[in-house]
Amino acid sequence: MTASTTGDDATTGRPVVPNLEAILGREYPVLDHGFIRVVDYMGDDAAVVQAARVSYGAGTRRVREDRGLIRYLMRHRHTTPFEMCSIKFHVKLPIFVARQWIRHRTASVNEYSARYSVLDREFYLPAPEDLAVQSKSNAQGREESVLPDVADEIRRLLEQDARQAYSRYEWLLNEQPDGSPADPDRPGLARELARINLPLSTYTQWYWKVNLHNLLHFLQLRADPHAQTEIRVYAEAMLGIVRRWVPVVAEAFEDYRLGAAELSGPMQAVVRAWLAGEPVDREASGLGIREWRELHALVGRELPDT
Amino acid sequence: MTASTTGDDATTGRPVVPNLEAILGREYPVLDHGFIRVVDYMGDDAAVVQAARVSYGAGTRRVREDRGLIRYLMRHRHTTPFEMCSIKFHVKLPIFVARQWIRHRTASVNEYSARYSVLDREFYLPAPEDLAVQSKSNAQGREESVLPDVADEIRRLLEQDARQAYSRYEWLLNEQPDGSPADPDRPGLARELARINLPLSTYTQWYWKVNLHNLLHFLQLRADPHAQTEIRVYAEAMLGIVRRWVPVVAEAFEDYRLGAAELSGPMQAVVRAWLAGEPVDREASGLGIREWRELHALVGRELPDT
Amino acid sequence: MTASTTGDDATTGRPVVPNLEAILGREYPVLDHGFIRVVDYMGDDAAVVQAARVSYGAGTRRVREDRGLIRYLMRHRHTTPFEMCSIKFHVKLPIFVARQWIRHRTASVNEYSARYSVLDREFYLPAPEDLAVQSKSNAQGREESVLPDVADEIRRLLEQDARQAYSRYEWLLNEQPDGSPADPDRPGLARELARINLPLSTYTQWYWKVNLHNLLHFLQLRADPHAQTEIRVYAEAMLGIVRRWVPVVAEAFEDYRLGAAELSGPMQAVVRAWLAGEPVDREASGLGIREWRELHALVGRELPDT
Amino acid sequence: MTASTTGDDATTGRPVVPNLEAILGREYPVLDHGFIRVVDYMGDDAAVVQAARVSYGAGTRRVREDRGLIRYLMRHRHTTPFEMCSIKFHVKLPIFVARQWIRHRTASVNEYSARYSVLDREFYLPAPEDLAVQSKSNAQGREESVLPDVADEIRRLLEQDARQAYSRYEWLLNEQPDGSPADPDRPGLARELARINLPLSTYTQWYWKVNLHNLLHFLQLRADPHAQTEIRVYAEAMLGIVRRWVPVVAEAFEDYRLGAAELSGPMQAVVRAWLAGEPVDREASGLGIREWRELHALVGRELPDT
Repeated sequence: MTASTTGDDATTGRPVVPNLEAILGREYPVLDHGFIRVVDYMGDDAAVVQAARVSYGAGTRRVREDRGLIRYLMRHRHTTPFEMCSIKFHVKLPIFVARQWIRHRTASVNEYSARYSVLDREFYLPAPEDLAVQSKSNAQGREESVLPDVADEIRRLLEQDARQAYSRYEWLLNEQPDGSPADPDRPGLARELARINLPLSTYTQWYWKVNLHNLLHFLQLRADPHAQTEIRVYAEAMLGIVRRWVPVVAEAFEDYRLGAAELSGPMQAVVRAWLAGEPVDREASGLGIREWRELHALVGRELPDT
Repeated sequence: MTASTTGDDATTGRPVVPNLEAILGREYPVLDHGFIRVVDYMGDDAAVVQAARVSYGAGTRRVREDRGLIRYLMRHRHTTPFEMCSIKFHVKLPIFVARQWIRHRTASVNEYSARYSVLDREFYLPAPEDLAVQSKSNAQGREESVLPDVADEIRRLLEQDARQAYSRYEWLLNEQPDGSPADPDRPGLARELARINLPLSTYTQWYWKVNLHNLLHFLQLRADPHAQTEIRVYAEAMLGIVRRWVPVVAEAFEDYRLGAAELSGPMQAVVRAWLAGEPVDREASGLGIREWRELHALVGRELPDT
Repeated sequence: MTASTTGDDATTGRPVVPNLEAILGREYPVLDHGFIRVVDYMGDDAAVVQAARVSYGAGTRRVREDRGLIRYLMRHRHTTPFEMCSIKFHVKLPIFVARQWIRHRTASVNEYSARYSVLDREFYLPAPEDLAVQSKSNAQGREESVLPDVADEIRRLLEQDARQAYSRYEWLLNEQPDGSPADPDRPGLARELARINLPLSTYTQWYWKVNLHNLLHFLQLRADPHAQTEIRVYAEAMLGIVRRWVPVVAEAFEDYRLGAAELSGPMQAVVRAWLAGEPVDREASGLGIREWRELHALVGRELPDT
Repeated sequence: MTASTTGDDATTGRPVVPNLEAILGREYPVLDHGFIRVVDYMGDDAAVVQAARVSYGAGTRRVREDRGLIRYLMRHRHTTPFEMCSIKFHVKLPIFVARQWIRHRTASVNEYSARYSVLDREFYLPAPEDLAVQSKSNAQGREESVLPDVADEIRRLLEQDARQAYSRYEWLLNEQPDGSPADPDRPGLARELARINLPLSTYTQWYWKVNLHNLLHFLQLRADPHAQTEIRVYAEAMLGIVRRWVPVVAEAFEDYRLGAAELSGPMQAVVRAWLAGEPVDREASGLGIREWRELHALVGRELPDT
């Protein structure tokens, strides 16, 4: 291992992004006990351009053109050049968030194992303003926060349960920090079993390595207002990091992906008629009621009375 | 949807495996509340052969030769023909098992969502004989079962905690089966939040679709004695299903994969020397102590005194 | 292998799609010597719904609602339920088409191997109307067809070259159909070497198995007018097959994916202003010239004079 | 793009491998016109250890232990820590080699496009000693080289054909370096069509980015004696680069993967009997003739007369 060096003094012939170097290894706090930090990265805005240009075989290399090329790639979903950059994060996150996160299969993961090791006594306890009411209109959403005194009561109960579950975990493990049993008259339960009593709010951690294309796909889904708040805050922290790392890609992503809306063929026909000043009937347009509403909201047009 | 039919009467021109048809949809119980059942499948032993033969362009098609070809593919890790078969399972399993399972990324998954729906009151409670002591030699293993009275005590505590966590879950949801609030003076907490208090032993369920190559890889790792018991029982149930589905592939898998051991170059040299009746010195052989032991165990040779 | 049966008489408890069964194994001709045929499939429209509903835990099951659910999934890019269906094709295609096709990595492939077997004397010779001029505006496109007499001349030359290359291939192989040398005084060159002289228009064939989600992604890119004609004709044949297999999914795909256009945030602002009758200046809008033109074409608005 | 810097002077806080930095960007010639060069990399031996240790939660960090841990991971196929390193190559290679290479799906690729750009006049012409006779025993192999005068004749013919195909390509394109037509009375054929007449020996190039786990899998298959010579030379060049980059991983790979052989359960039983001095009958052992031979070769034992 002596052949490698790590530290601020090392020089490299690889692309270097000073704005990202500046925060390498720094923990960004997320939620009450979580964090995210950049461990390593590969490539920059120019690496995307370089990969795209190999498909053209040549081309001049001015800054303005590079920006235009990246925006063109993003707009037309030419995705492979974005795979040429990768980033590795160290993340600490509650288990229920990890369960959503891991559904993204195109990444590499090494997670802290509760079969080998003892988990820390750390649980996610939502802040009062994050304790929100079940949405009536959206089965998977939340609405306004509960009243402060209800929030206090919920937090008190969640904390109590989590503490008790952890105490039980310790009792089952029966293992002191030095490995010796706390109670010598009783065997320690296997770690892989003792943990099954812990709640989904327990924190875990992992290394997560992903290429830029797959990261942007993750951010599009998880930085979206429909994502659960507790994963969205991680996505937003990562989006901030992406802005430091590949600012031109990040800008194109926010313009063409995050804020974009898709117009189906029938929706396009309706917009065309409106612009031509022609009346449009919903049923004749072929749009469902839900789409009809989405389209009005999108173009800032009031829904007609019904 | 009326264009499709499902039922015992439907005829098809696709490959059909009567032994698998016989158990289609049948729930195989696993653990205390879990199950696994086959929902759909595609291909059979012959489909593996067909794909392999396209690479040869021709060839006779006798039964004995097909078997030999499948065994050859398995032995030499020619894996792509096994990707031509797929199977879809419906599985009910504890969340901590689902977390190990999902690490296999090359499959398709649709899981029951606790953001949309309310989870059932079902928890994994290990049988007394499965409550085992932490292994001293293997950080991630277990050893012998705890004594019966300790097991009873542990089970009682785990059940108590799980019941309490579920009661709290219901209290937080504040939602009756018909959707109306149990306590009209209090709002129901969003489902996506209420669930974070539930333990990792809670059951979830999913559809899991995988091709035969990736399934065998899963089984090699999870039907292995080093896998945690609670996932191994699912792997064993699936292995039984694979034997019904593609019996020739299953036999080759068990001969060449499950029971196989890998001999490194240095290990091969030691075996050669032993067979030639030459003395072998461990340090000179280049084997580490651990490998040295593994090799002796493998070939049934007693370790020399040291 | 005797445990499996294939043929029109076999009954199955799996989902069956009679419209797809009707063409199972039938070769659809594509290009001059190519074809595509369905070898096997798994799932139907209802399988997509089934997978989506596991995430909801319940729900009534009427036809109209199933269609609405599929269209909702398509519109909002909830893609995993579409992974629950798979299809396996047998395709014969020119090598240069195979090279574009294989860039889609999320599929299983078994290709005819020219290391093991001798390739047939079959080459793609474009029809006269497909011999088109290099586009000036689009580096990777073609424009109008060349004149008939030029087309005849080009076809004559391409055919001549391909025939000569194949004759050379045979000479290098020096191998008669029975395996004996054509010229006993000369050794046959290894097949893996003899083939390197063959042109990219040579036909190859493979089994290609893909899930429905990845197939739709393939079709979106390859049934698009910007795709090279020679791969687009395969995509169009597959789209016709998808309409037979999963008609509700196919309809939703064509409405929301194939004919859809994406409106970036700045584009949405322009449309909003137009509908409100406000003047819009391109530079102030933040749109590039190319986007500005694309937007006008999309909504059927004439470009202002400049 | 100005935010990034590339050059020997840039400093970084990331892991740096001086031995790999020393050859960054250097072209290693492969075959007659090909090359491979490292464009970028991420991680080192220590990054593999770091990812493995997160699963243990702690652990001392001495050099000897790190080496032991890497060897343990390799021996027991704990593969995810190796995914934490990535490398990006720029490769120039004949199209028939690219077709084998691209079958490895778990990598990112950007290839020079002959739809956009004109290919160079470069073809692979095997060296005389590489022009080998088709193997009788192995359908996909080659045996001894052809005689020198036959080799000369073959090379002359291959070169002639390739030159003629390229001249035809230029005639079809009808395009001078400045873009103007060579013959103004005739239109240029679209690039995407003109190229279909070129032979499979034509060189292409691409960026290929892969993680260390998938790279080692590639090397195991393609640095193997059964791989076609023309791809094996690339694999060997990459193996040399891996030795510079992650020397501890490379050593473990060569010990446990490259030189390893797999012993099936029945094979293990035979070896055990031999070591115990017991006679073994092939048919009773359950081994096929082919396996029986392979086992004797592996342990250096002569085949008994039959």
